[in-house]
Amino acid sequence: MAEGPQTITLTTDFGNSDQYVSAMKGVILGINAGARLVDVSHEIPPQDVMAAAWVLKNSAFLYPPDTVHLVVVDPGVGTTRKPVAVHIGEQFFVGPDNGLFSLIADDRPYQAYELNNEEYWRVKLSNTFHGRDIFAPVAAHLSRGVPINKVGSRLDELVTYHWALPIADEEGIQGWVVHIDHYGNLITNISEELVHSVASGQKIKIYTGSTIIKEMSNTFGNVAEGEASAIIGSSGMLEVIVNKGNAAKLLSVEKGAPVTILVQK
Amino acid sequence: MAEGPQTITLTTDFGNSDQYVSAMKGVILGINAGARLVDVSHEIPPQDVMAAAWVLKNSAFLYPPDTVHLVVVDPGVGTTRKPVAVHIGEQFFVGPDNGLFSLIADDRPYQAYELNNEEYWRVKLSNTFHGRDIFAPVAAHLSRGVPINKVGSRLDELVTYHWALPIADEEGIQGWVVHIDHYGNLITNISEELVHSVASGQKIKIYTGSTIIKEMSNTFGNVAEGEASAIIGSSGMLEVIVNKGNAAKLLSVEKGAPVTILVQK
Amino acid sequence: MAEGPQTITLTTDFGNSDQYVSAMKGVILGINAGARLVDVSHEIPPQDVMAAAWVLKNSAFLYPPDTVHLVVVDPGVGTTRKPVAVHIGEQFFVGPDNGLFSLIADDRPYQAYELNNEEYWRVKLSNTFHGRDIFAPVAAHLSRGVPINKVGSRLDELVTYHWALPIADEEGIQGWVVHIDHYGNLITNISEELVHSVASGQKIKIYTGSTIIKEMSNTFGNVAEGEASAIIGSSGMLEVIVNKGNAAKLLSVEKGAPVTILVQK
Repeated sequence: MAEGPQTITLTTDFGNSDQYVSAMKGVILGINAGARLVDVSHEIPPQDVMAAAWVLKNSAFLYPPDTVHLVVVDPGVGTTRKPVAVHIGEQFFVGPDNGLFSLIADDRPYQAYELNNEEYWRVKLSNTFHGRDIFAPVAAHLSRGVPINKVGSRLDELVTYHWALPIADEEGIQGWVVHIDHYGNLITNISEELVHSVASGQKIKIYTGSTIIKEMSNTFGNVAEGEASAIIGSSGMLEVIVNKGNAAKLLSVEKGAPVTILVQK
Repeated sequence: MAEGPQTITLTTDFGNSDQYVSAMKGVILGINAGARLVDVSHEIPPQDVMAAAWVLKNSAFLYPPDTVHLVVVDPGVGTTRKPVAVHIGEQFFVGPDNGLFSLIADDRPYQAYELNNEEYWRVKLSNTFHGRDIFAPVAAHLSRGVPINKVGSRLDELVTYHWALPIADEEGIQGWVVHIDHYGNLITNISEELVHSVASGQKIKIYTGSTIIKEMSNTFGNVAEGEASAIIGSSGMLEVIVNKGNAAKLLSVEKGAPVTILVQK
Repeated sequence: MAEGPQTITLTTDFGNSDQYVSAMKGVILGINAGARLVDVSHEIPPQDVMAAAWVLKNSAFLYPPDTVHLVVVDPGVGTTRKPVAVHIGEQFFVGPDNGLFSLIADDRPYQAYELNNEEYWRVKLSNTFHGRDIFAPVAAHLSRGVPINKVGSRLDELVTYHWALPIADEEGIQGWVVHIDHYGNLITNISEELVHSVASGQKIKIYTGSTIIKEMSNTFGNVAEGEASAIIGSSGMLEVIVNKGNAAKLLSVEKGAPVTILVQK
């Protein structure tokens, strides 16, 4: 494989209308002029730590080894939440230890470090923008090959949150909408495996809001336009969708709403 | 000219709040770590194939030779629409064959290939995200120099749609709004050439919605603030604009609305 | 420090749904295939020159020397406003001379050049898209090392606008909201230095809209959730904020609104 420049991805809730994203990019290139910057998202809903965790879970491990993922959704900036760098699999992550790494650290071994070596920070530190002053410079230094154990001291455990697990028995599955995507697809915490173990080969009905779905579909295009259905989405989870429509709006279903699968006897 | 890294542009309707864009970027860099990623747009209106076609038409051929344009607006993912790679001019295009290439393939010779060589796909294929599983890996392989005839087999004809052509005679031109841009400018299917051939040197009136425009202007800044006018825009088409205002909102005109030029006798 | 590719940053009000950003990127790479493109923002509010000036002020000088900043917010395109290239500190800037450089040129020496050497422009020039036809190609040529005095002739003075300065005496400070960021934070024209010189060690009250704030906070997280407070933000200016809330919406305060600090006797 061709060797490429060291990659730093950026995932934030900064939006794209202010200087915040650019400030981090400038700081990074000032430290590692050879770095490649890859925008993941700056449209994480403000302060929605679990939305960023979801994006990481479903894309970070597709990158080549030694990619540095800079992740700044940081409602607790300036308080006691710890700034961290984490090594998981062959990827590096840098950001606040506030649950951002919940969905990637829960089933993988990790080495976490609390960032406390100010040598790798900006000289002038603010109380409100550690993205620019701590996380970006540390990410840039990691991308230059600074060993992760130089930027801080070992931390035993990251802060992690868990989505409620679905409840399942032979009669069905009770889960929840955990993410609504750009198209309005309702992504649940019900995995493909769970659907198969409970409902495989059986007739089912799926209930969400005031909508009843009578069978699962294979893909969007097999559903009549404007009809609701359920599919296994690209993240491996059950999704309630409307073909060529916004399911969240059309079905009036919000994040956190229950989705129930009942096996028909 | 300095030699640069191989460029892959990305044009999608994925939005910027989910993992979808990042998943494609990760897959690409995993295959070609030396690629340069250029974001064109991830804000194509959901499933609006012709909006993406318009963006391609007006920017793709400005890129250097051998640029790979990855274009994923794919409402028919998982159905019988074909995944394709296309060589037009000196540019490569990869995406679903659903009309995306309508406006760049209609007047240029092209070589199209149906993507059916699974060797260049991700091993684990989903039914709902061919952007990640087929198009991104194929684009990455093309950028590494894999010949286009390796990734699939020759396809005689692409699916193409056409915007209705304007109707013109010596009395005037009847056209339509085909695109509304970020500023609210109403871009029509009436070309500069057509305007000149019918109306050159004559007094005209332009009608759209309930607005009557009495003459064309040379550029935005020559129109009084808040006034409607018509100009030849940067894409070479007639545009109805409001200086420092949003014409679509202020004139209550939507995509598809008629725009009529009448020559004044 | 590792040597990197020549960087061109892009700051525009083009939005991300049209071809405009991509057209500039294609033109740049067509001239300098080795350039690195860094998106700063394409979501500057349409034609809001001072919003772009604010973004530049707070991020441009963080980039490594010889970075070229392409800045296109250009309501006067095609009129008499001059296209310019500017050298400030070790950074290059290219864009229309309409006030965009107000906040970075006011207290720094600069060398400005009016772009009039058409050799560095696109051959086919439009009246409405100098971003593609003049600014992008000039930025690309500068990034290749073309000396700035080749692209135009020396211009003595840039057009600059000034935000109203705050009014201060021993009784307090009267300032204004000059920027509202993505989170709804109300950023004022009252600097940290001014707050300290007037109010240091004294009890103060801060008034904006119908809200009274009784003390300043150190950082967001020290403010009770949903409460309004004032902090010194990352740009060094006084900001009125609501912890985990949108101050602009919750306090019904708009850009331009007064913010008053009164020293309590």
